[in-house]
Amino acid sequence: MTRAIEAVAFDAYGTLFDVHSVGALAEAMFAGQGARLSAAWRVAQIDYTRLRTLSDRYEDFLKVTEDALVFASKTLGLDLDADRRARLMAQYDCLSAYPENVAVLGSLRRMGLKLAILSNGTPAMLDAVLANAGMQGLFDHVLSVDAIRRYKTAREAYDLGPAAFGYPPARIVFVSSNGWDVCGATWYGYRTFWVNRPGNALEELGVRPAGEGRDLNDLLAFVGS
Amino acid sequence: MTRAIEAVAFDAYGTLFDVHSVGALAEAMFAGQGARLSAAWRVAQIDYTRLRTLSDRYEDFLKVTEDALVFASKTLGLDLDADRRARLMAQYDCLSAYPENVAVLGSLRRMGLKLAILSNGTPAMLDAVLANAGMQGLFDHVLSVDAIRRYKTAREAYDLGPAAFGYPPARIVFVSSNGWDVCGATWYGYRTFWVNRPGNALEELGVRPAGEGRDLNDLLAFVGS
Repeated sequence: MTRAIEAVAFDAYGTLFDVHSVGALAEAMFAGQGARLSAAWRVAQIDYTRLRTLSDRYEDFLKVTEDALVFASKTLGLDLDADRRARLMAQYDCLSAYPENVAVLGSLRRMGLKLAILSNGTPAMLDAVLANAGMQGLFDHVLSVDAIRRYKTAREAYDLGPAAFGYPPARIVFVSSNGWDVCGATWYGYRTFWVNRPGNALEELGVRPAGEGRDLNDLLAFVGS
Repeated sequence: MTRAIEAVAFDAYGTLFDVHSVGALAEAMFAGQGARLSAAWRVAQIDYTRLRTLSDRYEDFLKVTEDALVFASKTLGLDLDADRRARLMAQYDCLSAYPENVAVLGSLRRMGLKLAILSNGTPAMLDAVLANAGMQGLFDHVLSVDAIRRYKTAREAYDLGPAAFGYPPARIVFVSSNGWDVCGATWYGYRTFWVNRPGNALEELGVRPAGEGRDLNDLLAFVGS
């Protein structure tokens, strides 16, 4: 890549932080069901962001996340009492960061790139998870869709990156582990990189990210090439 | 209910027609994987309608349905050759209708109610499935979102009902088996009825359909009450 790239915007949940790290606590609460609860919780969480955006019924990501936990628990027939509910929700403040993150973010900064998070999470949720992972200060911008009350993949959500950096989206690399998010961002006009840790199939949406790798280390090669 | 209701609009896929009836053919092709393929296909199909609507990248439901089949097959590692793909897609023209449908639709008509389908499907897809189920002539309107190029749960999709009937949504019962669809329609302003055949948990979206039942026979009691 010729150095047309000026900045990198990262999705948070699933990309920098492992949303399934809640599965261990869920497994301790509901033996044999932790992974299923974690997966169903995530599916409902994403569904609710889309449905609320399509119908202009925004509620913030903390509320959506808790609603999704309640629905997933009911669907699986699990007894989610107030204590379990609070402890599972609290995990969202201390999701595991993927191990290579901090070194890669430091390398990108030394290359002179500006960095941002562009997330569905609320500012308070993002502050907490960044602080607990020791990742404050690594980002020039922590951008939350809460400012515009529409979730990704709405255009207004992706607008936050160019607005904050002052560069057009083609000069910003957008990084996500979520196939639908990289597709939405590619449609929008970002230069996109898909962190495809599990080796998933690409979504059949008629669009392809500019780059793909197995973890953030592969992003370094992509940006530096 | 006092007789403020003038019309009934039905979702098609999942509500009048069983989308998992393709599972039998899928099972014959991919032993032990038919139900998984049918479920993954449906999830991707719905996801793609939402993503394309959020990003204003409409492709019609036939295209979205075939894309979803390709993605679901890749995700499950199944060899979807051209013949299997064509035969599975052809099933969409002859989905099984739920057995009580025709009698209930006839009863509603005898009550003087106007009837419509309001579906994500293309006009051609809806014509074919209705013809194969012997259900032509039962509906005053067959409304496809293809006319406005946005999928449910976008407001423009639900607008089709009031526009066709000439009644406000509060005087139209909207019937769907899909929890997210009844929630979207309730937000929009329809009087809603959820056909909850499997006894699913209600989506946690802060909204509740006006009525709920196990099949379309329960709709008769709801409308007549």
